[in-house]
Amino acid sequence: MIIVLKPSVSEKEIERILESINDFGYKAETVKGEARTIIGAVGNQKEKQQHMNLLGQLPGVEAVVPIMQPNKLGSREFKNDDTSFEVGNTIVGGNKLTVIAGPCSVESEDQIHSIAESVKTGGGTILRGGAFKPRTSPYTFQGLGEEGLKFLKDAGDSVGLPIVTEVLDVKDLDLICQYADMLQIGARNCQNYALLKEIGKTKKPVLLKRGMSTSLNEFLLCAEYLLAEGNMSVALCERGIRTFETATRNTFDINAIPVLKEKTHLPVIADPAHGTGYWQYVSPIAYAAIAAGSDGLAVEVHNNPEIALSDGGQSLKPKKFNIMVEKSRIIANAIGKDI
Amino acid sequence: MIIVLKPSVSEKEIERILESINDFGYKAETVKGEARTIIGAVGNQKEKQQHMNLLGQLPGVEAVVPIMQPNKLGSREFKNDDTSFEVGNTIVGGNKLTVIAGPCSVESEDQIHSIAESVKTGGGTILRGGAFKPRTSPYTFQGLGEEGLKFLKDAGDSVGLPIVTEVLDVKDLDLICQYADMLQIGARNCQNYALLKEIGKTKKPVLLKRGMSTSLNEFLLCAEYLLAEGNMSVALCERGIRTFETATRNTFDINAIPVLKEKTHLPVIADPAHGTGYWQYVSPIAYAAIAAGSDGLAVEVHNNPEIALSDGGQSLKPKKFNIMVEKSRIIANAIGKDI
Amino acid sequence: MIIVLKPSVSEKEIERILESINDFGYKAETVKGEARTIIGAVGNQKEKQQHMNLLGQLPGVEAVVPIMQPNKLGSREFKNDDTSFEVGNTIVGGNKLTVIAGPCSVESEDQIHSIAESVKTGGGTILRGGAFKPRTSPYTFQGLGEEGLKFLKDAGDSVGLPIVTEVLDVKDLDLICQYADMLQIGARNCQNYALLKEIGKTKKPVLLKRGMSTSLNEFLLCAEYLLAEGNMSVALCERGIRTFETATRNTFDINAIPVLKEKTHLPVIADPAHGTGYWQYVSPIAYAAIAAGSDGLAVEVHNNPEIALSDGGQSLKPKKFNIMVEKSRIIANAIGKDI
Amino acid sequence: MIIVLKPSVSEKEIERILESINDFGYKAETVKGEARTIIGAVGNQKEKQQHMNLLGQLPGVEAVVPIMQPNKLGSREFKNDDTSFEVGNTIVGGNKLTVIAGPCSVESEDQIHSIAESVKTGGGTILRGGAFKPRTSPYTFQGLGEEGLKFLKDAGDSVGLPIVTEVLDVKDLDLICQYADMLQIGARNCQNYALLKEIGKTKKPVLLKRGMSTSLNEFLLCAEYLLAEGNMSVALCERGIRTFETATRNTFDINAIPVLKEKTHLPVIADPAHGTGYWQYVSPIAYAAIAAGSDGLAVEVHNNPEIALSDGGQSLKPKKFNIMVEKSRIIANAIGKDI
Repeated sequence: MIIVLKPSVSEKEIERILESINDFGYKAETVKGEARTIIGAVGNQKEKQQHMNLLGQLPGVEAVVPIMQPNKLGSREFKNDDTSFEVGNTIVGGNKLTVIAGPCSVESEDQIHSIAESVKTGGGTILRGGAFKPRTSPYTFQGLGEEGLKFLKDAGDSVGLPIVTEVLDVKDLDLICQYADMLQIGARNCQNYALLKEIGKTKKPVLLKRGMSTSLNEFLLCAEYLLAEGNMSVALCERGIRTFETATRNTFDINAIPVLKEKTHLPVIADPAHGTGYWQYVSPIAYAAIAAGSDGLAVEVHNNPEIALSDGGQSLKPKKFNIMVEKSRIIANAIGKDI
Repeated sequence: MIIVLKPSVSEKEIERILESINDFGYKAETVKGEARTIIGAVGNQKEKQQHMNLLGQLPGVEAVVPIMQPNKLGSREFKNDDTSFEVGNTIVGGNKLTVIAGPCSVESEDQIHSIAESVKTGGGTILRGGAFKPRTSPYTFQGLGEEGLKFLKDAGDSVGLPIVTEVLDVKDLDLICQYADMLQIGARNCQNYALLKEIGKTKKPVLLKRGMSTSLNEFLLCAEYLLAEGNMSVALCERGIRTFETATRNTFDINAIPVLKEKTHLPVIADPAHGTGYWQYVSPIAYAAIAAGSDGLAVEVHNNPEIALSDGGQSLKPKKFNIMVEKSRIIANAIGKDI
Repeated sequence: MIIVLKPSVSEKEIERILESINDFGYKAETVKGEARTIIGAVGNQKEKQQHMNLLGQLPGVEAVVPIMQPNKLGSREFKNDDTSFEVGNTIVGGNKLTVIAGPCSVESEDQIHSIAESVKTGGGTILRGGAFKPRTSPYTFQGLGEEGLKFLKDAGDSVGLPIVTEVLDVKDLDLICQYADMLQIGARNCQNYALLKEIGKTKKPVLLKRGMSTSLNEFLLCAEYLLAEGNMSVALCERGIRTFETATRNTFDINAIPVLKEKTHLPVIADPAHGTGYWQYVSPIAYAAIAAGSDGLAVEVHNNPEIALSDGGQSLKPKKFNIMVEKSRIIANAIGKDI
Repeated sequence: MIIVLKPSVSEKEIERILESINDFGYKAETVKGEARTIIGAVGNQKEKQQHMNLLGQLPGVEAVVPIMQPNKLGSREFKNDDTSFEVGNTIVGGNKLTVIAGPCSVESEDQIHSIAESVKTGGGTILRGGAFKPRTSPYTFQGLGEEGLKFLKDAGDSVGLPIVTEVLDVKDLDLICQYADMLQIGARNCQNYALLKEIGKTKKPVLLKRGMSTSLNEFLLCAEYLLAEGNMSVALCERGIRTFETATRNTFDINAIPVLKEKTHLPVIADPAHGTGYWQYVSPIAYAAIAAGSDGLAVEVHNNPEIALSDGGQSLKPKKFNIMVEKSRIIANAIGKDI
């Protein structure tokens, strides 16, 4: 860490600061300028937050600046090569374009079977569908629960697609693990550390969605909760952040894609459905995400979006989904991805 | 809801729209202007999201505007009088100024006993302290767990203060309920609906912190999850939102106080420690919150903030805490609160 | 507009509201539901803000919702076909991919001539360079002024590229118009209405950059200031908005591209340099913007970004610029743009 | 500045970095740790942005961290004592509570005279009113121009209050200076540097409003543009920032008050009208601002807010204004301000 001193700092204050640095096991070096003095402090281990707290409050200190990246296992420094992992009969990451598609919620056996057919035909590689739904209001449809899981599993089996579904609650985890090939952690639970730890222990592949106001550094640390439990099959999903703009439901953070690809070896998936909130913007943003280097897409497909029990307004009809996947592959090729 | 039609809408499209409105059980009324036509649709029950979805996607429809407030039990329409409730030997809400204070984390028996004394002396009414801590990084101090609960309970008992502590995980809930007088739901779990529902069932008083990017309408709906389970002892805590500004850790949303007081009968507590992130701004923002109509404060007090294991930089020393409480009472009186 | 009434509204209050609506020249229709009453009010002209103000404050009114789009000349309703216009020897908009490139600031005659060569060779269609610079601090380099304009014009002429440069101040406008083929309005002046009006009168093609916190609806109204003065040669430039994320300098709002293309006939240009702030993210975001439907790019190219007097960190070297343009054309073709 | 090196940096790269630092005239000191090396670089003058750019792009460099505050004349380091200055017959700053009040726009001679009476009676110290109005849409009321200035000046004279009005355009500056005692720079022009410089030259007292997405550090630099021209009579006005929250028009950044008071000697004024957008929240936020240490208030008062030509919804009626001023004085006393 770097300790920036006030112009008015006294020799005695500097002494006390240096003493504290040494006490905490860091090596300090003082750099005196005519206008300002700074102290560099480096150790052979992670900088501890409480040390920075302490030093930041000593008399004469203006600021303490951290210099170490706090994420470890997910970083390119720890592992430079892109991570890829199996989800059922497909691979997420590497040079494979992942296409996760399906309805927001599993609504009935017929609905999910019919959509599964469309997803398979249209080029999807993983079938999605919510059985347990996080809803802003307690008075709206909350999902079919285990029945929904069964329908989703059957539908996936019948068309030959692995399935992904959201885990809302640690108490449903064992049940969901019996059905799902991949576990989704929703945006609202991105920093639900209790849930992250338990899912980390399962070793099931995970689709971790970014929280609405989770910074990219925090997002990497959320993934770190999973990795630290030994689960290395984690895909990061950008799904839009919350900003002042109201013309779209969220602001899809396209910058996140090259930033994450630079900082981590984990695959990055784009969710242009939540990232925009309107079906007519889903395809353009999907193309954008692929062009920016995303390893795949997660979209909502519904045969009757008009009567979807949730998020119908951002769902694609099968025909539009087909076109979207086709063009996405062309763009992926255009930027040198060999699919 | 109101359905705004496109200028180009055809008579046939209008017919289909009206039909759908009737099918869903609403009564429709068409208002034709020279430039634009709108349809008002009202029913004798809550507007359903899927109905709005459907209508929004019919040909000829430009927008669908909801008109009903989605929160029910927490609204002033449901209950006009301010809610107040007992927490141990004190009252939260009404004309009582609540002062929740203590360390971010319980670190040791000595630490919490010593701080409890300071909190009591300084005018605190509830002792706070974290035993299970949500931490951005999995590699930092995560709290003392049950031992921390015991220390906190003992410390509260010895000075005569009820205690509040955070619940991170449903599986800790029974344990925490044995010790705590009030349960805190942290900002990161504000929209963790699984946790909200389980805590709603306990009937323990709750301090619900606003999420970093939770809008006020969503915040009211989070509270509704608790209320809908029959737990009416809920205090809402404004603790700063995430914005572009980096001079402070969060932006304390002072507007939230009069807005919430207008919309809900639940007590509103201000947390100027997380709302600013720097101890030197805590007192001014505490005064501001009281002046704006807050029912109380939640702050961090630490005897040695320099060596606090978490959030030391935003903790007050006991002496500053005393002054803050004293001045807060003067301001509360100035705006007509009789304490 | 739509007037939503409070559940508690009285008959007498409704009467007064209806009277006011009629007085203002609107036609009102009341829709009574069991839970709530609404009034639709439509007229044969624009809704006036002061009418909405008035009605919103009458007793018994809960909310007033506008239903008319405030932008006129820029809307697809006014003109459905895409606008394109000449800038020197090139065309902006339509099926032509615009590539605006050059240094942030004109620094010397040599510098701009050398970069102009690189821009031309690399496939640029318009040469950019700042002669008058808006700088956050008054103590940093403010541009070469008229000398810079001359250098830029000469450089453009010598390679056969039209030039675009920023206007900061109405008093420089005549001077700049003598040299420039296109006028840039910077993000900080996006809502500087005095400047917009004067530039609107010139009829010179304009590159209007979105403000850091200008919503898309407001952005369209800023363009309207230019259009209303009779200047229809306006290109809108998305250059990133300000959000909580700090990993990049701004958050490039990729959603803005399909949203703007839907709402307006004006061409949309993407600036991935300011949209990210780091050169290594410029190309991926450029590809993303093209894939999302942008009509062109505005980037910074510098032969020696390390010693650029401003914004060097987001500038591309000529070689990277060549590759970026080439790949952008491939992606444009992939999504069906015939270039 | 501090240069943080990559773990993988080579000796040769370090050499080149040190060389560059010396070339730019800084003194460098290297701090080697087992995990990481950093270099501190200090000079006897301001750190130059282009030096930081260069160094940040050298091989082996991970980040460059500035350590010097860029604002000079406005800083507490330059001048520790609070600034106060005369505006007509009153003082802004120091221990005096400034109350700027009046209509958003001057609409007629009668209107402004009548409101001026109310402002004077209610305890206002400066009369405000817009003659040139910045409007989001070019099709709405743009102000009365010089006629409005005359009306405003007359009204101020007749009740004995100095006047403040907004300058939108450099070309109106001389005219406005003939009438106004204080010049307002609006939020949209906060970073309009051409305007700032010209107003800086006038030496007239200035009310500088913070831009909707201007960070506090940038805001201080905007003020620096005025100070650098020799105009030291500058009051900073917090008027709300743009965030994701839509329950209010802006989010009043209460934190800005203690932060600005800490960093600068300039007076800080709060505008709770724009900071909330709704009249019913104006008084609570005014109290909050005073409690947080604001030197004064700027609010909108209108005798008939229902028919105001702009911003009527956030205007106070005279009676509410009286109460607001009275209670604000009580709170100012409560926190030790002797008025």
